[in-house]
Amino acid sequence: MSRGHDRLIAELREKLGATVVVTDPDLIAPWLTDWRGRWTGKAAAMLQPGTREEVSTILAAANEAGVPLVPQGGNSSMVGGATPDQSGDMVILSLRRMKEIRAIDPETRQCVVEAGMILATLQDELAEVGLRLPLDLGARGSATIGGLVSTNAGGTEVLRHGTMGEQVLGLEAVLADGSVIDTLSPLKKDNRGPRIDRMMIGGEGQFGVITAVRLQLTALPSDRATAWVGVASPQAALKLLRFCEQECDAVEGFELLPKDSLAAAEAVFDLRAPLDGDHDWQVLIEAKGESEAGTLNEKLGSILAGAIEQGLAQDAVLAQSEAQAEAFWSIRHHLSDAEKRHYGMANSHDISVPVDAMPAFLKEVRDRIEADYPGAWVSGYGHLGDGNIHLHVRPMDRASDDWRATEGAEIERKVHDMIVAHGGSISAEHGIGQMKRDEFARLGEPARLAMLRALKQALDPKRILNPGKLIP
Amino acid sequence: MSRGHDRLIAELREKLGATVVVTDPDLIAPWLTDWRGRWTGKAAAMLQPGTREEVSTILAAANEAGVPLVPQGGNSSMVGGATPDQSGDMVILSLRRMKEIRAIDPETRQCVVEAGMILATLQDELAEVGLRLPLDLGARGSATIGGLVSTNAGGTEVLRHGTMGEQVLGLEAVLADGSVIDTLSPLKKDNRGPRIDRMMIGGEGQFGVITAVRLQLTALPSDRATAWVGVASPQAALKLLRFCEQECDAVEGFELLPKDSLAAAEAVFDLRAPLDGDHDWQVLIEAKGESEAGTLNEKLGSILAGAIEQGLAQDAVLAQSEAQAEAFWSIRHHLSDAEKRHYGMANSHDISVPVDAMPAFLKEVRDRIEADYPGAWVSGYGHLGDGNIHLHVRPMDRASDDWRATEGAEIERKVHDMIVAHGGSISAEHGIGQMKRDEFARLGEPARLAMLRALKQALDPKRILNPGKLIP
Repeated sequence: MSRGHDRLIAELREKLGATVVVTDPDLIAPWLTDWRGRWTGKAAAMLQPGTREEVSTILAAANEAGVPLVPQGGNSSMVGGATPDQSGDMVILSLRRMKEIRAIDPETRQCVVEAGMILATLQDELAEVGLRLPLDLGARGSATIGGLVSTNAGGTEVLRHGTMGEQVLGLEAVLADGSVIDTLSPLKKDNRGPRIDRMMIGGEGQFGVITAVRLQLTALPSDRATAWVGVASPQAALKLLRFCEQECDAVEGFELLPKDSLAAAEAVFDLRAPLDGDHDWQVLIEAKGESEAGTLNEKLGSILAGAIEQGLAQDAVLAQSEAQAEAFWSIRHHLSDAEKRHYGMANSHDISVPVDAMPAFLKEVRDRIEADYPGAWVSGYGHLGDGNIHLHVRPMDRASDDWRATEGAEIERKVHDMIVAHGGSISAEHGIGQMKRDEFARLGEPARLAMLRALKQALDPKRILNPGKLIP
Repeated sequence: MSRGHDRLIAELREKLGATVVVTDPDLIAPWLTDWRGRWTGKAAAMLQPGTREEVSTILAAANEAGVPLVPQGGNSSMVGGATPDQSGDMVILSLRRMKEIRAIDPETRQCVVEAGMILATLQDELAEVGLRLPLDLGARGSATIGGLVSTNAGGTEVLRHGTMGEQVLGLEAVLADGSVIDTLSPLKKDNRGPRIDRMMIGGEGQFGVITAVRLQLTALPSDRATAWVGVASPQAALKLLRFCEQECDAVEGFELLPKDSLAAAEAVFDLRAPLDGDHDWQVLIEAKGESEAGTLNEKLGSILAGAIEQGLAQDAVLAQSEAQAEAFWSIRHHLSDAEKRHYGMANSHDISVPVDAMPAFLKEVRDRIEADYPGAWVSGYGHLGDGNIHLHVRPMDRASDDWRATEGAEIERKVHDMIVAHGGSISAEHGIGQMKRDEFARLGEPARLAMLRALKQALDPKRILNPGKLIP
């Protein structure tokens, strides 16, 4: 830790007090390691501002001192996006104390909420007035709104509602020099140049620190239908998706689940998929709407009957109660953990290709990797409707750290090459962070990388905002 | 014209031929003046590339030579955004020859189309396969897709579908150095940093030249309802809007029309509003959907009956045929011209405030301007549902050029001050261009202006892309 840090910390403690400036190692320790325990770092201090003005004071001072900050929300990044490095030169900037709902407007279905608000807490508050944010994911109990926006998070409702960024109508962010951009005013039209605030969405804290956002909400659904369907192949699943979308605009989730993943859930957690027959692939479908309760169940039931008749589906069952719907989803949410326990760690790839290309891509990657690396085993589940599968590669035996770092890493690069050849993305919804930075550098189009670097240089010339992440 | 221009033009003619490099003054002349005749400039040449590669060659060479380019589509900018300056140093870069539809996918309702495609032509092509782009405006016969995206154009369907930018799924653009960014691949999720391509949307050609876009389309409507409604005030109109939106999600247009504008249409074009009574304000409502023909008419009819019962509306009439619907809209589309002929030129303000603030803003601006400038007369019509009114200020006598440049300009600054005080925008849908650049410099938040300047410096350090527009 350099003298610059000492001075910065002393200056900020003087200005903002000990609640904001934390140096007790015991208080900082839990935030030095990402939640999956893959990255650990050191930090000279942890700053916990409670207001936009305090964030502004911190950034202006850090910029002046040249001390790098790591913005952090719930610390639930999947790619090491919120973990400081090993140097001890970085300071954690926690937004967790900024968690107020500044406004809710039930008429326009909008709210303004601060960055540190936890997703699940926000949903509870919104439900009180009949609203919800149409975004859901496993980390809902820890992920913060600021983090979700900074990483443009996805989840299980993207099919209909889009990713987190698409819910953002405007935002307030502090730039590297402490100045503030504010697009929270609820304007439907504002044509004063491009929407520069969008640089913060998926920006992984590189271009500014989000302190609040205005969100577009939807009504709390009054009706819901959840179905479990057996299909012959990903190709059949895709046809089923198109058929469902044609017949019903309320389909929010469409998760493709392979046999081996479901076998793990049964073996480890005794969670049994609700269909009796033997299906190579199964699909979990969710529809939500504002219709009278039961309407969607009837509609989805008749759609699925038609699908079976047309040979698009092999068998289907509808959840008959809220509890049963939750049980269906519980299987989906336990898959990651079940696979890890049953089959061992995998090299996991959060990737996307154009939706229509997914079935062919899945087959090609499986055939090629399993041929080139005997014993390697490719599987995957996830958001077929978004062209986003979480692809897992394992050796037949449980994967050792050594395998993951050698053959596994080599396979990863091959998978990424195939993704690029299909016009896809090496990160669908988890971001780049530390984990994929080098692969992004290797495979990103030169013009895209150059543009990102130029924008970074323009907005954060001293590299104080989350250096070492995203931008190669 | 400097020697740099000579060399550039000779070099490009050598490389790209005479079809691309036009120097005949007669061919260039029509493109030196904006369509309303407010700005005229000079140009050393007009370049008409036919492919992305040619655009790339042109930008690389112009960047090398330091020769500024003015990208141009249909030349229908409302703010002088596509007109060269008087220096003769600029070269027009026309995208009009790039007008292919590269792909249409009826299943996902998407198309990839080049920048020079004219809006009306695209709509005709799309209608052949049952699709449409949900965007419409007066300049449909000349405005190009590239121009519409570069200016993030609005129009009469924004209420439901958003502005042009919201239809853009991805794009291809050439940067100042000739390199190309390409996000045309139809990925639903791509989390490799922020969407840098969004810098081109509403970017007014400052950050790159759009050559093609992937657009989200909707189905050609099978059902349509158009209504004309008398209301007591803008406040009542806003309540009516909320009531309609609550009852029907197919409302695409909601245009507020004052008595004096309608009087002009009747006086000049003999276009009579379809209601008999005397209403201070009237509203034109449009709903479109995929329902069986007649369904929306019935639905909107019953909604309006309810609205009259509740005192939200005074009277209403539904168009009984497609021809009648077109006649309703014809009145709306003739208002601008009718006012000009009947009342003389106005100082027109394309402004927005939060939707809910519009009635109070309209009253306040009218009261204040008419009090401070006896004889000045404030009126306005337009997209109430978007918080976007085209506000017109005139003296009681026909406005002279002198009035417009003196008292009119002073009033304009006062109106803009009031807009800022209401958290609004001095440009709702027309952009900044040349016309509003100085007011943007005066009123833009310092952090926003600084960020725009930094981004411009990063992406176009030699200022070859449309200099003198947007960025102060």
